[in-house]
Amino acid sequence: MDGLYGELRTRTIDGIGGLVLVITQDFETGEGLMAAYANKEALKRTMETGYAHYYSTSRGEIWFKGETSGNKQLVKEVWADCDGDALLYRIEQEGRKAACHEGYKSCFYRKLRDGELKIAKKRIFDPNDVYL
Amino acid sequence: MDGLYGELRTRTIDGIGGLVLVITQDFETGEGLMAAYANKEALKRTMETGYAHYYSTSRGEIWFKGETSGNKQLVKEVWADCDGDALLYRIEQEGRKAACHEGYKSCFYRKLRDGELKIAKKRIFDPNDVYL
Repeated sequence: MDGLYGELRTRTIDGIGGLVLVITQDFETGEGLMAAYANKEALKRTMETGYAHYYSTSRGEIWFKGETSGNKQLVKEVWADCDGDALLYRIEQEGRKAACHEGYKSCFYRKLRDGELKIAKKRIFDPNDVYL
Repeated sequence: MDGLYGELRTRTIDGIGGLVLVITQDFETGEGLMAAYANKEALKRTMETGYAHYYSTSRGEIWFKGETSGNKQLVKEVWADCDGDALLYRIEQEGRKAACHEGYKSCFYRKLRDGELKIAKKRIFDPNDVYL
């Protein structure tokens, strides 16, 4: 696993070094679900457990996706891009089948229409029921 | 257009501020094609022309994708994520139908298998024939 991290080209995001971008897609439908960052430890835990772990740049800590909400992401495939600073996880979304803490399947639930972002996906759960 | 940029939360990548992440997907197949960054000007040009423009963090300049290779990306849909630091473009890949300068349809052409990244997609063109 150090092997994979060692092959990547890390970036510094808002002053936090050692990060690689991770984008996730639904394994079955290909829907783009979210974008986040991972550090070495997050990548290690992802490989060991099979579930997506990220590094939260806002909280400054490892973030086991779904630990609170149950909406874990089983990583079925890992792809790396040409310059090695981004990974693509093809995942199976567990729990409420929603990747976004706002209750949508995808974090990309707002679509640009006539120059404005408008909600264009259906909400799956009410965040107030999940996050206390 | 300033409207959209104004609604986004920019990040600083390797010391370069004012950037938002852009991930692109094939409009028809949903295949994840690439990840790059855009600044205000790149976003403006994308909206004005309908073709994806990025900000190259390595070259430090606006990057009109496909300007050299002809492999332009017609942006069909723009989506924003929940915290506003990432956009998802659903695009129609023109030219050789390959987003990657290495000659693959997707920049994510290496798949993790048995702990190693291995090329798992078919090359569409030889970069030596395109980039002089």
